[in-house]
Amino acid sequence: MTYVRNAWYVAAWSHELEAEKPFAITILGERIVIWRTATGGLNALEDRCVHRLAPLSLGRCEGERLRCMYHGLLFDAGGQVVEIPGQDLIPAKARVRAYAVVERHSWIWVWMGEAGAADPDLIPPAVGLDDPDYILGHGQLDYAAEARLINDNLLDFSHLTFVHAKSFGSGPQFAQTQGTITPLERGVRYERWTENSLGSSSRKSATPMDNFMAYDFLIPGVLLMTGGIFPLGTAKACGYKAPDLSTAVGGVTFTSQAVTPLGDKSARYFFSWGPHRAHGDEAVRDALMVMADQAFGEDKVMIEAQQRVIEATPEPKVMPTAHDRGLIMFNRLVEKEAARAQSAA
Amino acid sequence: MTYVRNAWYVAAWSHELEAEKPFAITILGERIVIWRTATGGLNALEDRCVHRLAPLSLGRCEGERLRCMYHGLLFDAGGQVVEIPGQDLIPAKARVRAYAVVERHSWIWVWMGEAGAADPDLIPPAVGLDDPDYILGHGQLDYAAEARLINDNLLDFSHLTFVHAKSFGSGPQFAQTQGTITPLERGVRYERWTENSLGSSSRKSATPMDNFMAYDFLIPGVLLMTGGIFPLGTAKACGYKAPDLSTAVGGVTFTSQAVTPLGDKSARYFFSWGPHRAHGDEAVRDALMVMADQAFGEDKVMIEAQQRVIEATPEPKVMPTAHDRGLIMFNRLVEKEAARAQSAA
Amino acid sequence: MTYVRNAWYVAAWSHELEAEKPFAITILGERIVIWRTATGGLNALEDRCVHRLAPLSLGRCEGERLRCMYHGLLFDAGGQVVEIPGQDLIPAKARVRAYAVVERHSWIWVWMGEAGAADPDLIPPAVGLDDPDYILGHGQLDYAAEARLINDNLLDFSHLTFVHAKSFGSGPQFAQTQGTITPLERGVRYERWTENSLGSSSRKSATPMDNFMAYDFLIPGVLLMTGGIFPLGTAKACGYKAPDLSTAVGGVTFTSQAVTPLGDKSARYFFSWGPHRAHGDEAVRDALMVMADQAFGEDKVMIEAQQRVIEATPEPKVMPTAHDRGLIMFNRLVEKEAARAQSAA
Repeated sequence: MTYVRNAWYVAAWSHELEAEKPFAITILGERIVIWRTATGGLNALEDRCVHRLAPLSLGRCEGERLRCMYHGLLFDAGGQVVEIPGQDLIPAKARVRAYAVVERHSWIWVWMGEAGAADPDLIPPAVGLDDPDYILGHGQLDYAAEARLINDNLLDFSHLTFVHAKSFGSGPQFAQTQGTITPLERGVRYERWTENSLGSSSRKSATPMDNFMAYDFLIPGVLLMTGGIFPLGTAKACGYKAPDLSTAVGGVTFTSQAVTPLGDKSARYFFSWGPHRAHGDEAVRDALMVMADQAFGEDKVMIEAQQRVIEATPEPKVMPTAHDRGLIMFNRLVEKEAARAQSAA
Repeated sequence: MTYVRNAWYVAAWSHELEAEKPFAITILGERIVIWRTATGGLNALEDRCVHRLAPLSLGRCEGERLRCMYHGLLFDAGGQVVEIPGQDLIPAKARVRAYAVVERHSWIWVWMGEAGAADPDLIPPAVGLDDPDYILGHGQLDYAAEARLINDNLLDFSHLTFVHAKSFGSGPQFAQTQGTITPLERGVRYERWTENSLGSSSRKSATPMDNFMAYDFLIPGVLLMTGGIFPLGTAKACGYKAPDLSTAVGGVTFTSQAVTPLGDKSARYFFSWGPHRAHGDEAVRDALMVMADQAFGEDKVMIEAQQRVIEATPEPKVMPTAHDRGLIMFNRLVEKEAARAQSAA
Repeated sequence: MTYVRNAWYVAAWSHELEAEKPFAITILGERIVIWRTATGGLNALEDRCVHRLAPLSLGRCEGERLRCMYHGLLFDAGGQVVEIPGQDLIPAKARVRAYAVVERHSWIWVWMGEAGAADPDLIPPAVGLDDPDYILGHGQLDYAAEARLINDNLLDFSHLTFVHAKSFGSGPQFAQTQGTITPLERGVRYERWTENSLGSSSRKSATPMDNFMAYDFLIPGVLLMTGGIFPLGTAKACGYKAPDLSTAVGGVTFTSQAVTPLGDKSARYFFSWGPHRAHGDEAVRDALMVMADQAFGEDKVMIEAQQRVIEATPEPKVMPTAHDRGLIMFNRLVEKEAARAQSAA
């Protein structure tokens, strides 16, 4: 399992963090407690008291601080112990790791790498639930599978034809052709025109049109996808490049998806989806969410089964196909970034 | 755990395999998908796609072929990939293992050894549910225990006196005496006369009679048992050898039982049982099945508890008793056959 | 996990052992069967038949003996096999370990060390449910945690202020000050006066009084605690030593608690609690039990969470505080006693 540590990982939805209620999550195997103070600030610490290793997430918020509720050690936002009941002297080593944490696009992002490199500009430009242009629903799923397998799934959309034949309704021809894949600094871009088509379940048209879809898949595992329906001939007129989405005649939606590795064999999958205000309303959003729940359930069945097969295989080996180009490009980038951070350390 | 690989293992009941519905089972730790084609043929493949290790058992039957429903690779009955969506060239190495599979005696048998040695004549002569002579009920149980422990149980019937005191009703004297044990080419034969007896729960008589029971226990773990009630003096008249069952005055039944190792500590136990048409009807069959369900539940409690004790014991050692003669004979045969296959390989 | 083997461990409540019903428990990872004979005697054996390792706890009591109900081997109270069905000769090695077992103070105590050293005088002086002076309720809890963590909890009562803020109602000042800790031959003694106080939930007074509490924590993990309410000035008049409890004006209770390690990460916690007859009745007892159930549930949540953090920590290290003095004293004693037994062996 190779992951880029110098990256922002989605830890929760904004609304999951109520004021002064510590929230526990494990990311990349590290137990983290995040809490929102009464004044709205966000803090994140290693979720393990220095005293006897009780989880701080069972603790009590006191102003900007968090008290371990086993024997009462009090931690400041930087992870330093500032009070030990019944003891005057506080050892300097009485501290736990603090994590940079940022709230943006309706998600709580935690930086898992070296503290000095935590640059909020590296947070992927997801679309938040409060975005004025989109009407978004949202959900999440826990996987009994390595996050990498979910990333792989999202990097090869040829599975739509098979896994999602009934939900997304992409026909057999979808898997017969390739999209255009372009490397990005922190990910890959996938773009695809389907000409003269009635679309799929989420992007239908009454008469044949040109259909566009595109997504960026970004480190550590964030998918940002949009698309739309265009008049016949648009694809060709654009030279099969990305169109101006504001010229779409319908079907413009946006989905933000984030895959967070919890442990070696578990992951949390966050997603939002909905139409552009110009192309849909709450009813369209609700229909898309029904479709998403069905489809992501289909992925979960397949990926968790795949995980079990891999675990039961002494030396698991894959055999890449033509559709794995984006997946391979992304995974090489991950390996490179992970190696670079390690050699710098 | 030593098992003979060059053997036919029961994977399922015939009726469990519906046309074009892939069936998944793990035998000796190997994940296998079996499917019945629309034309009635049976195929069995390694249940693991060559591409990204998704289970083929989540796939779709297409004629004689099976399509992986993750990214659409299509496998023929021999395990060769014959189609990769979006890719023209198919690597020769794109294949999975195919298993010989035979339907016989209402069971689906899979050959776990070297393909060249798969000889259907080695399938034990079980009695199928459609046998004209017997009226059979059937059932199955999954064990959280090593298959070997179930084999051992079936190879030492002295446990009837203790484990099954209430169900089969074999009295204390049953465990005091031994049957006759004879080696077979692929197993052992157990035969036993009980003279001047009112029988046990499944083979009762109103007045004292001579009672006969016999079973073969065959590689890899198949028990085939019969018996009957005979007039007083028959045992002696036969010289305590096996009688002609067609001369029995009652109590002739047949039971076929198969123990299939799933993983290291799990097994599936298949069984059928019922009276000969001349000695019983559907009501007798139903009464026997009630008895079997109770008794096999008693075995399961004991054997799964035994498994837990063994797992919790650093260096488990057994101390054989006089009743273990058949068990030891069979297990030595297993060791010998397993070693022979290995040295031949 | 270091534990003193030369010690009496609580295996059960007296009333859990019905005549001729074998009782199974695992202590320090050893599976033990205990049974009460029809004449009232108690026997304890290794719970593993010498034949094929079936658990004797599934067996049948026959007089002073226990029969394995798999293949019928009969064991005497000393662990020797005295009957093997169908076999005349009984090997001398056909025996399992016998454990010394004593019923005292409503508990069944099993000696886990060398047989020769089993001295009933080492049984801690717990107060039994039938004690004429106290009206006791009782209960038990199974922990998914190492017993040591529960011992540690009971050896540092500063956690009362935090874990039990709502149940026992010890205020913040409780954790600010220390009790007096004295080494005992097989444990530690904790004593504490709280002057001019209205007490805690279990020992309240209408006007400020002097409040005393004291407990011994004894090998292998037995807590015996009492205390009471005294007129203002008593603490000082006693020189802050232990008072004569018969002079208390109220609040005298007794609690006996025992922590038994089952396996590496599991433990059983037995407890009784109630008022002295002079200071309470059945209603007081019931109120204390409600409080205990709530408080011990709070401990369980914290300790099992602590166990999970420890398991997820590659090299767990603690940082002792001033309140850990009793805990460190006891754990050093355990290490010393365990080492002494080992070097003597």
